[in-house]
Amino acid sequence: MKASQFFISTYKEAPADAEVVSHKLMMRAGLIRRVSAGIYTYMPMGLRVLHKVEAIIREEMNRAGAIELTMPMIQPAEFWQETGRFAGMGPELLRLQDRHGRDFVVQPTSEEVVTDIARSELRSYKQLPVNFYQIQTKFRDERRPRFGLMRGREFIMKDAYSFDKDVAGAQASYQTMRQAYRAIFDRFGLRYRAVAADSGAIGGDLSEEFQVIAATGEDAIIYCPDSDYAANIEKAEALAPRAPRPAPTQPLVKTPTPGKSTCEDVAQLLQVPLTSTVKSIVLATEELDAQGVVVATQLWLLLLRGDHAMNEVKVGKLPGMENGFRFASEGEIVAAFGSKPGYLGPIGVRADVKVVADREVAVMADFICGANAEDFHYTGVNWGRDLPEPALVADIRNVVAGDLSPDGKGVLAIERGIELGHVFYLGTKYSKAMNATFLDENGKPTWFEMGCYGIGVTRLPAAAIEQNHDERGIIWPDAIAPFTLVICPIGLDRSDAVRAKAMQLHDELAAKGVDVILDDRGERPGAMFADWELIGVPHRVVISERGLKEGQVEYQHRRQTEPTKVAVDQLVSYLAEQNVYGLVP
Amino acid sequence: MKASQFFISTYKEAPADAEVVSHKLMMRAGLIRRVSAGIYTYMPMGLRVLHKVEAIIREEMNRAGAIELTMPMIQPAEFWQETGRFAGMGPELLRLQDRHGRDFVVQPTSEEVVTDIARSELRSYKQLPVNFYQIQTKFRDERRPRFGLMRGREFIMKDAYSFDKDVAGAQASYQTMRQAYRAIFDRFGLRYRAVAADSGAIGGDLSEEFQVIAATGEDAIIYCPDSDYAANIEKAEALAPRAPRPAPTQPLVKTPTPGKSTCEDVAQLLQVPLTSTVKSIVLATEELDAQGVVVATQLWLLLLRGDHAMNEVKVGKLPGMENGFRFASEGEIVAAFGSKPGYLGPIGVRADVKVVADREVAVMADFICGANAEDFHYTGVNWGRDLPEPALVADIRNVVAGDLSPDGKGVLAIERGIELGHVFYLGTKYSKAMNATFLDENGKPTWFEMGCYGIGVTRLPAAAIEQNHDERGIIWPDAIAPFTLVICPIGLDRSDAVRAKAMQLHDELAAKGVDVILDDRGERPGAMFADWELIGVPHRVVISERGLKEGQVEYQHRRQTEPTKVAVDQLVSYLAEQNVYGLVP
Repeated sequence: MKASQFFISTYKEAPADAEVVSHKLMMRAGLIRRVSAGIYTYMPMGLRVLHKVEAIIREEMNRAGAIELTMPMIQPAEFWQETGRFAGMGPELLRLQDRHGRDFVVQPTSEEVVTDIARSELRSYKQLPVNFYQIQTKFRDERRPRFGLMRGREFIMKDAYSFDKDVAGAQASYQTMRQAYRAIFDRFGLRYRAVAADSGAIGGDLSEEFQVIAATGEDAIIYCPDSDYAANIEKAEALAPRAPRPAPTQPLVKTPTPGKSTCEDVAQLLQVPLTSTVKSIVLATEELDAQGVVVATQLWLLLLRGDHAMNEVKVGKLPGMENGFRFASEGEIVAAFGSKPGYLGPIGVRADVKVVADREVAVMADFICGANAEDFHYTGVNWGRDLPEPALVADIRNVVAGDLSPDGKGVLAIERGIELGHVFYLGTKYSKAMNATFLDENGKPTWFEMGCYGIGVTRLPAAAIEQNHDERGIIWPDAIAPFTLVICPIGLDRSDAVRAKAMQLHDELAAKGVDVILDDRGERPGAMFADWELIGVPHRVVISERGLKEGQVEYQHRRQTEPTKVAVDQLVSYLAEQNVYGLVP
Repeated sequence: MKASQFFISTYKEAPADAEVVSHKLMMRAGLIRRVSAGIYTYMPMGLRVLHKVEAIIREEMNRAGAIELTMPMIQPAEFWQETGRFAGMGPELLRLQDRHGRDFVVQPTSEEVVTDIARSELRSYKQLPVNFYQIQTKFRDERRPRFGLMRGREFIMKDAYSFDKDVAGAQASYQTMRQAYRAIFDRFGLRYRAVAADSGAIGGDLSEEFQVIAATGEDAIIYCPDSDYAANIEKAEALAPRAPRPAPTQPLVKTPTPGKSTCEDVAQLLQVPLTSTVKSIVLATEELDAQGVVVATQLWLLLLRGDHAMNEVKVGKLPGMENGFRFASEGEIVAAFGSKPGYLGPIGVRADVKVVADREVAVMADFICGANAEDFHYTGVNWGRDLPEPALVADIRNVVAGDLSPDGKGVLAIERGIELGHVFYLGTKYSKAMNATFLDENGKPTWFEMGCYGIGVTRLPAAAIEQNHDERGIIWPDAIAPFTLVICPIGLDRSDAVRAKAMQLHDELAAKGVDVILDDRGERPGAMFADWELIGVPHRVVISERGLKEGQVEYQHRRQTEPTKVAVDQLVSYLAEQNVYGLVP
């Protein structure tokens, strides 16, 4: 490719609405152009990246036996009504009507349409397993689209859906996809972790996220440096402490803590570590009658160590929480506890309030908690002595760095990640809702066991940039760079030797399989180098008249700060040593 | 590819709503699946065809210097309001609102967004010419979607947009695209014609349609078998007759024609050829004031030979018709002509009615027309003698087979076609509307000269099938077949020799570049052959135990009715002689 025949558009400044580095650099390097909030044109330079990402995904999905199809962008509401998602999904689902007033949605995913295909096309167990995938434009009407392609509204996703005859088959399909995802992410050339994720109401451990490591990532990734344990924050289990509960050493004292309603304030006032305090969180669950009217409300008191955070996913799995929970109102709290929030605690709690202690809290002694009286806390609180043992002890908190690893092989560390992929066992959720069955070995109609598997195609370049950039711009991994190597000739217009060598090297490297671009725009060296460093092409070869007189060109990797002189007739073998992507010497 | 690892779904019957053969065969062969009216899933077998079509288009567009990008499906109304198309485009434009109540459209094409890109990214004449293209999902909310992919609502289109600094540049860009389209359509392997089309108000001859020839096509293609003249029916010019007007031989007679209000009826009644009659069509144009209120109505009397049809595009170009016309109401006609329609004619017409005679009518003598009196026609009518020469003589009719070719090289013939591509010079229509300018050589802001170029990607397989099918199913051209060659083993499960040879040939042909599928499903020969004949794979190799004992396999092209025995060790060279696509022996 010659730069003069391509479209290159770089900017010194990023637009004001670009908050994160990937958004800024994608705009400055001309990879994308904003059309509306969260809606972008993929410009020629950016589309090359997407095409490479798509090609890798397609190859590995095909290799794993998945079969590509393309489902429509605009889907009729009927299917979405069958699963309840048309009404249930909220404003993220973009709804519209056609000229006849019929309801449609713009697909955010395609479970409904693919399940409809299965129920009419997959009639016998003999046709199973099948895994259909598509690489297709999706839309989610985010309330606050931001960060460029990181949280856009229109985006491209690879979504795959497996259909199996039984749970064992679905597990095998899941494992096949998991391996394919590892192959895909390995090929992208990004640092990533496959982390266990919550699998929702279905249970089991068949849910993993593929997180690209980046300091700016939205997600906390929990991992054990001494083993291969990795999970997201919702999923990572906080083990029960190994040490038993110490014996009480302090008396129970009702202590004035005027105006100190947080654990931090109380710990500071009393000059104790935050880990000596216990926080109280009051939740409510409701029983509804057939008309959806609340007929009973149950209050819950959750106890967490002062420095710990509640994990809503774990709480949502407690017995009695299956249908969801909410935070209790101040009125409900005052009525039940006789105190406003900030001074609550488990001593003297009304018998109809369910008390749940986090595992960590259950082994604390001499702790501090609210006294259910404004401006007072208890110190020296001890289970069994000052209050009954907790009715329920459970893991209801987020893990923190230093916690024991659930696999018993060390302690946990935390890093930040960007979710790029998700493999998920769906079970019969959609096949039941849409009554999608096949005939099993005995001729009996049986619901499909399903899995779904997504990769955020347009989000991937953003994550790659968050992970790989410096003050000069993007640093692409070879496999997904818009171009693998750029030839920068100095004085193209003045020197026939430079022009001839540049053209010859371009043609030679292209013939040898390198995705090469020759910058024949006639820019000055400074501007030319700055462009390609901003765009982030990983390999650069500079040709100058002076160099050629010495039989040399200069090579520099985007991560290097200085060029290396290379004999021009050794260049190809030198590039092969640098593992230039695609090069077949 | 092994059939057992792919998804094959064929049907004996087409659904009841499939009216045309391509729709029936695409459904029966499992290429597409209906999701809603005019909205389809491209099933794995169909998607392979689309991917091949897209690859050919992409290669040739890139070769022609066009640059690929991807514009969004969901586009903000603001751009469409700038060009007036948001309000003006009618219900085919699918409109929707996001969660904040902002207006959007689903793109039917992308002139607005690409022009917005140009006005901010293309700042100088030095950046021109540029041609941006995309291969992207589109939506047109057709009132009556039908014929499967032939007139769908959601479809894939390749749309390209060129930007030039002046008309000469735009003409050059147009010619480049025209050549690229010829290369693309040549590679598809379909019989097609590039036909001149009407270029609307812009004038000039820079509009051509690429029509795939098919007896079932919606469009009439006019061509000259003795030259390369080809045009669509709107465009094809009807030359003035060479022979001069004959001298009058009959007297003018007012003849009773009770109840005979059509030329056909009058000709039959009077026992004269239809070509002796003249039909009268009354049109109206309106003058509006600034508030859009009609302040004046002009009536027009158009005269056509009885066997000819009015061409609305040609009529719309008459001086005075620039702002559109409508058919006059019966009330207007009676008031102006003193007779109801069916008995109108040019004799004694009120002076304020503009009379336009078709070129053919202008040289008629002794003709028959209405007498402006119910149940009466004139016979023996002659220009100059019985009525004044027509105020305006123009080409206002559709050509018919046998008309003189406009290039003077023979007579015209007509065949049917399906429009698959269109190249079109846009001029400054969109750049003016959106004030999209660049700085010219003198630093002066100048509107871009634009062109647009479309190919209906998803419509193409339907057109290919309309052109290439028989009673057994589809017959794909090699380049866009879902698979190029199928290996059908007989008794795969019974014979190790058959299995081994089938596998070996599959691997060998795949390695030599053939897109081959091995049918290892274990179907009986009849069902297996019927499937592949329905699907339309062009080349078939049958391997049987008996054949192998004689060292032979059977080859049959989809168009052949009998197989040919080929020595198994000569197969590759034999296939090379059959020009099997992709084969590098």
